[in-house]
Amino acid sequence: MTVTERLEALRIKMREYGIDMYLIGSEDFHGSEYVGDYFKCRAWISGFTGSAGTVVVTQDTAGLWTDGRYFLQAEAQLKGTGIELFRMNNEGVPTVSEYIAEHIQEGQCLGFDGRTVDARSGQEYVRCLTKKGASVNGRYDLVGEIWTDRPALSSEPAWLLDIRYAGESREDRIAKIRKILADKGADWFVLTSLDDIAWLLNVRGNDVMDNPVVLSYLMMSGDSIRFYVSDKAFRDEDRAVLESAGISFFPYNDIYADISGLTEGKTVLYDGSSLNYAILERLPENVKVLDEENPTLLPKALKNPVEVANIREAHIKDGVAVTKFMYWLKHHVGKEPMTEISVADKLESFRKEQEGYLEPSFEPICGYGPHGAIVHYSATPETDAQLEAKGLLLMDTGGQYMEGTTDITRTFVLGDVTDDEKKFFTLILKGNLNLGGARFLHGCRGYNLDYLAREPLWQIGMDYNHGTGHGVGYLLNVHESPNGFRWRMLPNRNEGCIMEEGMVTSNEPGVYLEGRFGVRHENLIVCMKGEKNEYGQFMYFDTLTMVPFDLDGVDPSIMTEREKQLLNDYHRTIYETIGPKLDEDEREWLKEATRAI
Amino acid sequence: MTVTERLEALRIKMREYGIDMYLIGSEDFHGSEYVGDYFKCRAWISGFTGSAGTVVVTQDTAGLWTDGRYFLQAEAQLKGTGIELFRMNNEGVPTVSEYIAEHIQEGQCLGFDGRTVDARSGQEYVRCLTKKGASVNGRYDLVGEIWTDRPALSSEPAWLLDIRYAGESREDRIAKIRKILADKGADWFVLTSLDDIAWLLNVRGNDVMDNPVVLSYLMMSGDSIRFYVSDKAFRDEDRAVLESAGISFFPYNDIYADISGLTEGKTVLYDGSSLNYAILERLPENVKVLDEENPTLLPKALKNPVEVANIREAHIKDGVAVTKFMYWLKHHVGKEPMTEISVADKLESFRKEQEGYLEPSFEPICGYGPHGAIVHYSATPETDAQLEAKGLLLMDTGGQYMEGTTDITRTFVLGDVTDDEKKFFTLILKGNLNLGGARFLHGCRGYNLDYLAREPLWQIGMDYNHGTGHGVGYLLNVHESPNGFRWRMLPNRNEGCIMEEGMVTSNEPGVYLEGRFGVRHENLIVCMKGEKNEYGQFMYFDTLTMVPFDLDGVDPSIMTEREKQLLNDYHRTIYETIGPKLDEDEREWLKEATRAI
Repeated sequence: MTVTERLEALRIKMREYGIDMYLIGSEDFHGSEYVGDYFKCRAWISGFTGSAGTVVVTQDTAGLWTDGRYFLQAEAQLKGTGIELFRMNNEGVPTVSEYIAEHIQEGQCLGFDGRTVDARSGQEYVRCLTKKGASVNGRYDLVGEIWTDRPALSSEPAWLLDIRYAGESREDRIAKIRKILADKGADWFVLTSLDDIAWLLNVRGNDVMDNPVVLSYLMMSGDSIRFYVSDKAFRDEDRAVLESAGISFFPYNDIYADISGLTEGKTVLYDGSSLNYAILERLPENVKVLDEENPTLLPKALKNPVEVANIREAHIKDGVAVTKFMYWLKHHVGKEPMTEISVADKLESFRKEQEGYLEPSFEPICGYGPHGAIVHYSATPETDAQLEAKGLLLMDTGGQYMEGTTDITRTFVLGDVTDDEKKFFTLILKGNLNLGGARFLHGCRGYNLDYLAREPLWQIGMDYNHGTGHGVGYLLNVHESPNGFRWRMLPNRNEGCIMEEGMVTSNEPGVYLEGRFGVRHENLIVCMKGEKNEYGQFMYFDTLTMVPFDLDGVDPSIMTEREKQLLNDYHRTIYETIGPKLDEDEREWLKEATRAI
Repeated sequence: MTVTERLEALRIKMREYGIDMYLIGSEDFHGSEYVGDYFKCRAWISGFTGSAGTVVVTQDTAGLWTDGRYFLQAEAQLKGTGIELFRMNNEGVPTVSEYIAEHIQEGQCLGFDGRTVDARSGQEYVRCLTKKGASVNGRYDLVGEIWTDRPALSSEPAWLLDIRYAGESREDRIAKIRKILADKGADWFVLTSLDDIAWLLNVRGNDVMDNPVVLSYLMMSGDSIRFYVSDKAFRDEDRAVLESAGISFFPYNDIYADISGLTEGKTVLYDGSSLNYAILERLPENVKVLDEENPTLLPKALKNPVEVANIREAHIKDGVAVTKFMYWLKHHVGKEPMTEISVADKLESFRKEQEGYLEPSFEPICGYGPHGAIVHYSATPETDAQLEAKGLLLMDTGGQYMEGTTDITRTFVLGDVTDDEKKFFTLILKGNLNLGGARFLHGCRGYNLDYLAREPLWQIGMDYNHGTGHGVGYLLNVHESPNGFRWRMLPNRNEGCIMEEGMVTSNEPGVYLEGRFGVRHENLIVCMKGEKNEYGQFMYFDTLTMVPFDLDGVDPSIMTEREKQLLNDYHRTIYETIGPKLDEDEREWLKEATRAI
């Protein structure tokens, strides 16, 4: 079936169901960052395979919206399909909502699969279209009706996370959330974000690439937990353990009927930023709703002492793997053929040697030279560059370990570097060191500290166009709310919470010079309590990541004494921690690679 | 009349009006920071003369709430009155609201003069007491009924601010605000904050100490401006000028009747954080309200180019005055008797020599040695310390000039200083220099930058318990919203706006070591546009204040090269700007006092 044939089949379905405009996004039913193949409706209907995009189809037109990362790819993949490309954020290009509002006619109907649209956006479509005398129908998965060879919903084996990893029993976690619900007067809590469910029940799975979660929904009350999940997911003995914790099992799709059957007058809590519109739409009218941040979000972010101890262990393992890779890379580059993809595979092979390693925590970014300047670069066989003994290689990779999730970026010096490469390598390092070395009163948020990472660039009128840091899960999603480092307060982004003890956040300033090179230095840092005195509770960060910054890129002459001290202290810790776990040659090299400057 | 007699007279009135609990705060009718003598009801009824306090009286009890600055003073002044002291923020001490909620009985009535309570607090009392079956009566000024020798309401001469100072005509300002009102769909705008009225109409007065404002209210619609002000305030010719700008004059108190007479169905905009409860209460029920930030607030904060040029001029004049004072102080201390009060008077005499100087912009803080550690210290004849040729003198003072408002703190070294004095003098200076030297993308707020000023203290587990900076008016209030430097986001404090070109903010980190000494270094800085490039619009600060930091307190060994550069650049600018305006002896000294370190 060509894309044109698929669009025609969709249009027939649209006529059948009385839908004039049909919207197909990139989401699964849970608002996940990454989605399984079952959910790739937009890619199937349009042929555009980038990670982000939205298609809007009418009887006469079809359009695809995507962002700057994908303009070239989308142009190529849409050629000949008749689908118009809308380049998001370019001047004069309407947003999807603006386009819909402008083109829908009175009496017409906008359709989408409500399970793939978040509740707040769905409500916004209804509000906006009602004003125009048009309607919204979120009931039909029209692509599903015509996609004959659609991959099955993932139902990979799921498993229980032992308390020695989680540090807290599922019973305790459930009790903690029940207490919050009681305080808020909520009779029911509907939880549909997969990492929150995995955290709450101490379960893990393999239904989303790189995120060890289980496709499922959950509803909990004061005395029941309804877990909607494939009956193939858990082994019988694990199921029995969960049932003994008061958890009842139901088929994955049954939540929709159960939501419709909620008793009127009850109070239901949900997070409208992750709940899907189809669930919201099925809530009986006289149910009271509390649309609030998931009460699991903050407890999940506050890693307990067992989790923190494990995460330190995971980072030592990851540190050994990446340090061994760094030794290998620095000794072999220029002497044997290697490419972006082959060295990413090589690094993965070092990680696989570590006990408790499961899988990457996200798709690796490995960009050599000019590719390092593409923030979301993903090497393909077509772009895969040969590495030579010169310039910079930016590698942003991470692993899922039983002991936690890692995420590290190092920029490696492969040989001769220019003065500019060295200057920017050092400026970004200054930012990383100063943020990591912050000390602050409890109550500070990422907003208060982000400047530290950006200052070296801002002072010379430059910037990097991404956040400085995101929260990181425990053997869960590598991007986790509500902690982060940003300077701009965006009301719709939940990443500005107060920094609390046990929060793990990335510290990853960078710089990207188009067509030339990119530098990023990323450590994970955990927030810790420091001194408490008459001024209040002081907080600081402990760096978890255990891999040296490549001193071949450092120009000490533009660093302050304090910055050099911070770097030297960090490197000494790495040598003491990682050194004993290396071969002798590697250790000798590490001693030099972590020397004081 | 003793305080006991006053309380008894009040209780008779309370019985007469059926009021069981009466609240007396410290506010005027406009939410002003400083209030005239007419408004000092709380001081009159209790005998406690501190700037902040609230009295609650019942038939059997009387209590006064005040904060830590005033515990000692309040204890002394309340002795023998039977008024119980509630030490605010001490553990176990209820707030005024908590106390009222706890002690009021069903069917009882809480009374206050609604003109002295802000609208939001008044509404909160109503909400809270209604729940308890009690009521609120905000109609009676009971203290006014018994205070026989009450000072008259101020009605000092008011005057018109010429456009060469304001940079914008009142007609243009009015048109600008009318446009905002039209966009918001507001038929009426009720403006009661005195500095906003003064800004809007380009008028100034003398009704509040140190704030050159006119006691007045204002209501504006699309085609009328009703100005409620004493008929003695303006000369006939000035009144004619205002009338020709479409402004109609009404007696000061007539606003209350006019509010009651607003046509139903109209939309009224007001700022509930500064509007008083008595006005709110008189709004007809079917009027639609928009309780929003005053639309005058942001335009007032965005000083126009004429204002900025004038403010620079004001700071040069102020710089000459304070630098001459510094020369005098450093040459005379230890050689002739001087005290905190006498040197504050001396500084005032230098300011008075400057053309266009009107009055202080706030009550000077002049604290020697241990007094410097009292953040809000105000020397009295009883505390007035003799200055000797040693230690530190902290002086926080400012002036109202035709060209703008100044506010400067310098910590002067009077002779030998200890290592600690020098260390903290330098640490605070580092914070001041780094904040003043910030460079950042447009969109940043004070929250994003405050860390720069605190870092030297936070790194050693110390802090100062006040904001780093506040907005400053143009020949208006020395404390002006919505710009400021704070790290903690307080929802009720409006000081976290985006830093825009033309905003003037203080930069005043400090440290206060109880019983030993205090250091504060305060400059005013104006936000400016820097480079605009592919990363966005960069912003920076220009320092307005033109007085050297006392190099006798500086330890260059704990400063970075950049900090020394910032200090040296600043000092060179001062020498070049102020030097030519000094006597030769002073200039020679200034050259040394601004030498590069």
